[in-house]
Amino acid sequence: MNYTYEQLHSFAKKIFMAIGHNEELATGAADVLISADLRGVDSHGIARLKGYVRLWEVERINAQPDIKIVHETPSTATIDADAALGLIAGPKAMQVAIDKAKQVGTGWVSVKNSNHYGIAGFHSMMALEEDMIGISMTNASPLVAPTFGKERMLGTNPISVAIPTLNETPFIADMATTTAANGKLEVLQRKKLDAPLGWVQDQEGHPTTNANGVKEGGALLPLGGDREHASHKGYILGSIVDIFSAVLSGANYGPWVPPFVSFIDPVANPVGEGLGHFFGAMRVDAFRPKEEFLQHMDQWVARFRETEAVDADNPVQIPGDFERGMEAERSKNGIPVLQAVLDDLKELGDKFEVEL
Amino acid sequence: MNYTYEQLHSFAKKIFMAIGHNEELATGAADVLISADLRGVDSHGIARLKGYVRLWEVERINAQPDIKIVHETPSTATIDADAALGLIAGPKAMQVAIDKAKQVGTGWVSVKNSNHYGIAGFHSMMALEEDMIGISMTNASPLVAPTFGKERMLGTNPISVAIPTLNETPFIADMATTTAANGKLEVLQRKKLDAPLGWVQDQEGHPTTNANGVKEGGALLPLGGDREHASHKGYILGSIVDIFSAVLSGANYGPWVPPFVSFIDPVANPVGEGLGHFFGAMRVDAFRPKEEFLQHMDQWVARFRETEAVDADNPVQIPGDFERGMEAERSKNGIPVLQAVLDDLKELGDKFEVEL
Repeated sequence: MNYTYEQLHSFAKKIFMAIGHNEELATGAADVLISADLRGVDSHGIARLKGYVRLWEVERINAQPDIKIVHETPSTATIDADAALGLIAGPKAMQVAIDKAKQVGTGWVSVKNSNHYGIAGFHSMMALEEDMIGISMTNASPLVAPTFGKERMLGTNPISVAIPTLNETPFIADMATTTAANGKLEVLQRKKLDAPLGWVQDQEGHPTTNANGVKEGGALLPLGGDREHASHKGYILGSIVDIFSAVLSGANYGPWVPPFVSFIDPVANPVGEGLGHFFGAMRVDAFRPKEEFLQHMDQWVARFRETEAVDADNPVQIPGDFERGMEAERSKNGIPVLQAVLDDLKELGDKFEVEL
Repeated sequence: MNYTYEQLHSFAKKIFMAIGHNEELATGAADVLISADLRGVDSHGIARLKGYVRLWEVERINAQPDIKIVHETPSTATIDADAALGLIAGPKAMQVAIDKAKQVGTGWVSVKNSNHYGIAGFHSMMALEEDMIGISMTNASPLVAPTFGKERMLGTNPISVAIPTLNETPFIADMATTTAANGKLEVLQRKKLDAPLGWVQDQEGHPTTNANGVKEGGALLPLGGDREHASHKGYILGSIVDIFSAVLSGANYGPWVPPFVSFIDPVANPVGEGLGHFFGAMRVDAFRPKEEFLQHMDQWVARFRETEAVDADNPVQIPGDFERGMEAERSKNGIPVLQAVLDDLKELGDKFEVEL
């Protein structure tokens, strides 16, 4: 069944208020959450609402957080999110990065004591209207084995980079540093299909096509899939995200990252506070006149769109095209919500006396 | 035959002086070039010396460059390398990034009008002794097809990130954003071996195991190899390097990047000047007290080293382990130089009256 953005946003906002957020914070959190549904990243949208509520129930979410800068220089800040929803801490931290960039050209913010922050791209895209390049990354529940390892040591640790243009569509990359995001596996699980080799390994660390391999004690594989296809590079990228997000800020890193699923307790002896994010903003006119940059980005995008394709019906895409297409389609026709998700929302609605 | 670091360094320095560099510049260029041989990245070391000389012969290298900042803010700079060797422009630009970081926490420098800058890791590692995180990237000759494309649009566009530790080995990543660097293909070509699928596509854009596929009109593949294994993520990474290095600075980007090989002329209507690099330096104490950061990095490295391995004889590595091992071995036993490379060096030596 399809719902409008406004319907889902209003429902999520009311739930966030029901667990103690004021209207401003609840609106901000719903903005981030439902942007995922609008942009076609269903795994990170309204389907996660129940998960956030569960974290609140086990007292891992503070609905009245005092989010504050605990360390700074003219171009940097470290923020203690005070156990806020990452959906709330993320935009606040990105705004600090943007404000610093206005002052000294660039701003870089590492965040500790946070939780899952929704889609990475929401935060990086905040920079676009300021004619800045936006960067956003976060660490996440350990599900990924490093090359040669069988232990889960890293999250899917996404990186998003948003780059403004003048008239062309902006460049908006938003990617997990694994071959496949966990959401893609869930699709295969529902359809009872196998996964391609290179996505998952089993409990012994051997390649498997079992789409349930991660649930059965295996691990997601870093981008590349195996050593011959350079999975060490995916491992490197996930590690950089982990270190920038958590070792710089004082959050938990690697296998210590508290899991999003509330039925697994965080490890007993944490090395930091909550999980971590990292944000950056760079004014394009800190490097060259703004118009020059934007015109050349237009030319970059136009030229890459014109790349001679292997198959003329399947043209080369610009990062962000998929999400732009989904947003256009869903703004018009509404956002489809799976029955299993509707059941969860019904349950939440009953509990907090909110109607969808 | 094996040579010492000093022998190769002295030879390279004399050649750089013979083509017009003063002693200081020639020494700096040799420092970068021969560090590649020492660290086991043979494709980027003394084997390239002849290539740099050829670029000078076709007047694409300025041996007396006026490298200068053309645009800046407290945390950023754009540098015009004045057609210097990238081996010379790179360290100068990285030093500007470090100096800015000392002032305002971080420094970010984009460079135009440059040439090939050797191994990316030389530059990022300059930050380590300052207790900073170093970042280095560069665009390069177009050899890589974007996902779904058959045209060569991007270089192997490497990214290096160096992160300091207290007592453990530092984290030093240095990776091409393709599945395999071109140097790995050259090894297979010499041994007349096939390449794994996912490294190369042929002229029609179809996957091939032909290690000569790129030379025969095909292309290198972005990290991931094919769409099912997320090659669009490698394409994204290579694109970000291209944009940060060249659209920010005013260098050539994408298919306009001037090729390193001097027998292919740069394209007739360039969109910028030379090729581009991008450097960053972040003071770790711009985010939290230095000792805290370094101790947690030690713990990060130690914990990842202890990851349960699939095969106990093949432990999980920390980025930089390979190069550290090579450097230790070659410092002791010397640097092996292939006969084909020695022939080139002999020819260069004869031309400029320099002996190896």
